[in-house]
Amino acid sequence: MSRVLYELCGIDDELLFSPFCWRVRYALAHKGLDAETRPWRFAEKDAIAFSGQGLVPVLVDGDEVVSDSFEIMRYLDRVYPDKPLLGSPEAEARARFFKHYAERSLAPGMMRTIVMDLYNAIDPGDREYFRTTREKRFGRTLEEMHSPAKGLSMLDQALAPLRGRLEESDFMDGEAPGAADYLLFGNFMWARTVSTADLLSNADPVHGWMERMLDTHGGLGRSAKRIVDIQGAYDQ
Amino acid sequence: MSRVLYELCGIDDELLFSPFCWRVRYALAHKGLDAETRPWRFAEKDAIAFSGQGLVPVLVDGDEVVSDSFEIMRYLDRVYPDKPLLGSPEAEARARFFKHYAERSLAPGMMRTIVMDLYNAIDPGDREYFRTTREKRFGRTLEEMHSPAKGLSMLDQALAPLRGRLEESDFMDGEAPGAADYLLFGNFMWARTVSTADLLSNADPVHGWMERMLDTHGGLGRSAKRIVDIQGAYDQ
Repeated sequence: MSRVLYELCGIDDELLFSPFCWRVRYALAHKGLDAETRPWRFAEKDAIAFSGQGLVPVLVDGDEVVSDSFEIMRYLDRVYPDKPLLGSPEAEARARFFKHYAERSLAPGMMRTIVMDLYNAIDPGDREYFRTTREKRFGRTLEEMHSPAKGLSMLDQALAPLRGRLEESDFMDGEAPGAADYLLFGNFMWARTVSTADLLSNADPVHGWMERMLDTHGGLGRSAKRIVDIQGAYDQ
Repeated sequence: MSRVLYELCGIDDELLFSPFCWRVRYALAHKGLDAETRPWRFAEKDAIAFSGQGLVPVLVDGDEVVSDSFEIMRYLDRVYPDKPLLGSPEAEARARFFKHYAERSLAPGMMRTIVMDLYNAIDPGDREYFRTTREKRFGRTLEEMHSPAKGLSMLDQALAPLRGRLEESDFMDGEAPGAADYLLFGNFMWARTVSTADLLSNADPVHGWMERMLDTHGGLGRSAKRIVDIQGAYDQ
């Protein structure tokens, strides 16, 4: 197979937790496309230097190299137009908002809830990089950032419009999942793979959607390796 | 003209402040359609009973009667397909999220900031209805709800994804405004018409969008009557 996806991994090659990479895994599954996962760590900037930048996901599809999860979705729609992800120009414009909502509304509350679990899931060789970049970005130490009570309260507020939408529809994009679902769901996979924190009560309409998303595309999300599946993960 | 839009008005027949009605005014302008405004007050349930429910906006278009701002947008796209508002099915599915984001993320912070201004702008005959229904909905008195410091902080957090989107694009729907813009902008018109509270700093990308939205469709929003234009509004 000539299609390769570079994905961030943690203490185990199969512990894949990047929200951005999860968007792409679902986008590929949506199109019915396979890709070989190439596990990657923050320290391995050289391994993806060919992409002209230093972050994953990086998709290598034959001769084509594409980075950035949203750009990969655009690429997939262009080259494999069947089963559109982003769709019409106005649908794509609206999809862009979901990216920002995931990153700026959902992620902050999740981060404050799971940050120390996340740190524990990261490859030991990546931890200093992670700590330095995140502490600079957030202007506080990881330990100061860690506040599940605050995080869950932030998340609860951020989820309000998602609840409204999922009370009326099974998926963000309607009767079947699409780009809007994948753009958001990456963050939920991020939290799920590295942490056992309960972010959603069973009664939450977002919980039902999460269950449907875990099951879709042959149980892609549900079968993903989690930190709890890794023996000794909590002893390091 | 046979097209009539029933719109909520306040202490003056021309003080139109309903966020839902503003969505429709912009949607009509987007299509290049005129409609005669029929000022309506909460106490006048009988006047719109023919619509089978008790809220505005109600659009009467010849023999057709449509209520609910989102349903009116759908109706307009069906009957006047030129210049689509909601667009393709996936674009419409995504637009529904903007409705919830406006009502559940933006509105609460705005409400806590402007609630007493809003109360002052409402027709005296409607105030008891407004107070009773809102105090029941929010579980506190209007005076307890009034907390601009809290409201502006809530709004600041809610605006984060909007800022991200408007840093990359002039409008939510791309180079020109569309349904996503109108669904959100209604709330900004709501606050603008009844209050002088500064919700956005000049440096905020949302401020730039607000200015563009006020100017679009011939300055529809900018020319709207505000509470500050009404002599004696603050003496009542």
